[in-house]
Amino acid sequence: MFKNRKNILVLADLGGCPPHYFYENIAQNYNIVSYIPRPFAITKDHFDLINKYSIAVIQEESYFENISSFTKTNDVYWAMDEHNFSLEEVVNKLIELSKMFNIQAITTNNELFVEPVAVASKKLDLKGAGSKGAKNARDKFLMRQCFNNSKARTVNCKKVDDLNDLIIASKELGFPFILKPTYLASSLGVTLFKDSSELEQKFNELKKFVDTLTVPKSVKPSCIFIAEEYLVGNSSEWYGVEGYGDYVSIEGIMKDGQYYPIAITDKSPQIGFTETSHISTSVLSADKQKLIIEAAKYANESLDLENCATHTEMKLLPNLEVGLIETAARYGGWNIIPNTSKVLDINYPKLLIDVLTSNVSDQYLENIIAKKPKKFISDFHIYLKDGENVNTDIIFEGLEDTSQYINQDVKVNKYDEIPKKTILKYEDFTAFNSVAFYELESANSNSLVQTINNIRKNINFK
Amino acid sequence: MFKNRKNILVLADLGGCPPHYFYENIAQNYNIVSYIPRPFAITKDHFDLINKYSIAVIQEESYFENISSFTKTNDVYWAMDEHNFSLEEVVNKLIELSKMFNIQAITTNNELFVEPVAVASKKLDLKGAGSKGAKNARDKFLMRQCFNNSKARTVNCKKVDDLNDLIIASKELGFPFILKPTYLASSLGVTLFKDSSELEQKFNELKKFVDTLTVPKSVKPSCIFIAEEYLVGNSSEWYGVEGYGDYVSIEGIMKDGQYYPIAITDKSPQIGFTETSHISTSVLSADKQKLIIEAAKYANESLDLENCATHTEMKLLPNLEVGLIETAARYGGWNIIPNTSKVLDINYPKLLIDVLTSNVSDQYLENIIAKKPKKFISDFHIYLKDGENVNTDIIFEGLEDTSQYINQDVKVNKYDEIPKKTILKYEDFTAFNSVAFYELESANSNSLVQTINNIRKNINFK
Repeated sequence: MFKNRKNILVLADLGGCPPHYFYENIAQNYNIVSYIPRPFAITKDHFDLINKYSIAVIQEESYFENISSFTKTNDVYWAMDEHNFSLEEVVNKLIELSKMFNIQAITTNNELFVEPVAVASKKLDLKGAGSKGAKNARDKFLMRQCFNNSKARTVNCKKVDDLNDLIIASKELGFPFILKPTYLASSLGVTLFKDSSELEQKFNELKKFVDTLTVPKSVKPSCIFIAEEYLVGNSSEWYGVEGYGDYVSIEGIMKDGQYYPIAITDKSPQIGFTETSHISTSVLSADKQKLIIEAAKYANESLDLENCATHTEMKLLPNLEVGLIETAARYGGWNIIPNTSKVLDINYPKLLIDVLTSNVSDQYLENIIAKKPKKFISDFHIYLKDGENVNTDIIFEGLEDTSQYINQDVKVNKYDEIPKKTILKYEDFTAFNSVAFYELESANSNSLVQTINNIRKNINFK
Repeated sequence: MFKNRKNILVLADLGGCPPHYFYENIAQNYNIVSYIPRPFAITKDHFDLINKYSIAVIQEESYFENISSFTKTNDVYWAMDEHNFSLEEVVNKLIELSKMFNIQAITTNNELFVEPVAVASKKLDLKGAGSKGAKNARDKFLMRQCFNNSKARTVNCKKVDDLNDLIIASKELGFPFILKPTYLASSLGVTLFKDSSELEQKFNELKKFVDTLTVPKSVKPSCIFIAEEYLVGNSSEWYGVEGYGDYVSIEGIMKDGQYYPIAITDKSPQIGFTETSHISTSVLSADKQKLIIEAAKYANESLDLENCATHTEMKLLPNLEVGLIETAARYGGWNIIPNTSKVLDINYPKLLIDVLTSNVSDQYLENIIAKKPKKFISDFHIYLKDGENVNTDIIFEGLEDTSQYINQDVKVNKYDEIPKKTILKYEDFTAFNSVAFYELESANSNSLVQTINNIRKNINFK
């Protein structure tokens, strides 16, 4: 019998490192026990991968009412049903499973369950994000306070629970400022306020929208929103060329309270606050990357995170200043992790578990960030608002051919679009509403970003 | 939250009621927790069904060595790897899982794990086959002793562990007699000895063959073989027509030590001891069915079975005598259960769990056997030895069209054959070596059995 494989517990839910990359890469070296607290949050494809690569799969049983409860579909973007378990109940479940399966580490890709995973790990004396660190990472108001208490550039902010708070915040911060839900992810609900005339209506709409985004009962933020000064970036100063977004993200590892950067990801410009593409890994010069790494270190260490993956976003400000946007105690979403893994030849999911099970040296972690990408890969989504010829709701009939916009040194590795006849609402605009997806590859990052911008500028909906 | 569904634990392995019918029909009313003690015994299709309809799936972790351990295939007929867990270890695992998931009943379709399931149920004070009953049902020597101590017709028998025992048995029983492994299933290794000249060679071959059939370490029979008097049947006396096999099987339920017959299944003649078809449900007259039911009641109650499904086989002897062949503390294999369910409109898997969870009345159970089938369905397999034109090993190239042998009032519901180019060994002959499968349906049982015999008599291999 093969007792050399350690058992790890994955709280399986939406988000973070995608399932197609996560489970198999961990199962190569570890036995996965998967706990599914919200069966309705798991797509069929995700479920198949969980089942294929886990030695045990436990779903929260209270959701099974009749035979139709066992049907899993692929159209889950945000888990809309309720999860009525307290933090303590989720923690106790994780502890029970950990004891039963002799678990050596617990992890999750889902923002909303980072805290119970950290608390359970702590109670079991396993390495984890740490109860305090997880709480700070999951509450954008607490997070900003930590950031502002570190050596990183201060970003003025204010707690907001209601319209009155918002009016006070607007006076203190001035316009424009942004308002973010403190407990969500994927830029959901992030709103720019440009002047006082729109305060009330926009706030009411935002309240209504975030109320539709159910979160588990265990999520208890210190306030609903945080108002923050609006940071204006300047990407051309950083990149020396036009076309890149004015922000980056950086993947990292916390090990025993110390931050190790492991990859910086460039972007193309956002639509509002919705991301459009990630380019793995960054083409920025070493001295500029150093500034980003420094800010990420301040950010993540300020939260008191102990052992976890991190995904930190920051604005590239004028005069090479770095403005922290936010961080998360998990890897980044979309295909950032698979693509970074491809260009750097590193198994990031395994790396995280190695850290949690004390199976990796500080020296190895220190050297990762120095790796040069073999090539550049972009994970790129098209939205309805990219359509040159669209300014209203439409029934999707496909996209016009884009091959003329793709540079010769750029290869399309994958292309996928949503089913034809899907009804698209022009104003329903979030990261979930992508209509098409490209994976592009090139030896030249500039050429990649040019191609992305070219497609976005010229795309026509049929 | 829906707390009205009880949790039941299924020890999932090969055999018994087929997966395509079992899991879904239980999941309609109960939450299934599946424990897989031998991951190598589960086909991919079986695994997919387990995952789809279970609220939790736990595989025995010690079999996972590397990423290839997670690959499941469909070519599993007998689980050939070792399962090195003692009865006590399997029982303890079942108890641990039962406590964790608040299990109300434990069941299995696999012969080889009937005993640990019964012992664990007993220790948990759950309804089950009973430790003594399960032991008797799993050891064909103990079983025959129980049968012979009941009011059923005695069948002379003798313990056999080695050639010396066999020689003694042959003298006591006379020729012909049969020798059966005490702990296997599917007629595996059942051998007819016709005279003393073949004793030694046949026995050595048989020993070699059964040694290839690995069983879990928890299986501990009182002796390896049982020698029994050979029963000669007379089907035409029972059926009044030619063409039926000279034996039947009867599905039953034990509830609190009392036997309830729930369906009798007719057969076509065997090839050696390998079954060729089942016809659901029996066309025998009520008075003849009564004799079968009576023998089944003697048989199953004599074992001290408490609460379980039963599958009992018996020979139809001359003078309307019934000769017990054997019984099992689980439902029958092949499609007996799905087909019986179809013709009688009864959800048999659910019925079993209803019994185990005290959710069914005696009166309901008493009335099942009186149900008349809506139609007759047969589950019919073709073997290499059926081939008129075959008497050696071949490479399978398909079967000649058989439509001319199918009566007009017989419908082919399903037909399937093994992949072309499969190498078939003429002497490798067990229930696993079916080359084609028919599901036939008719309002007329006689016509069904005629069709089966017609196909078998005339089938040609390409």
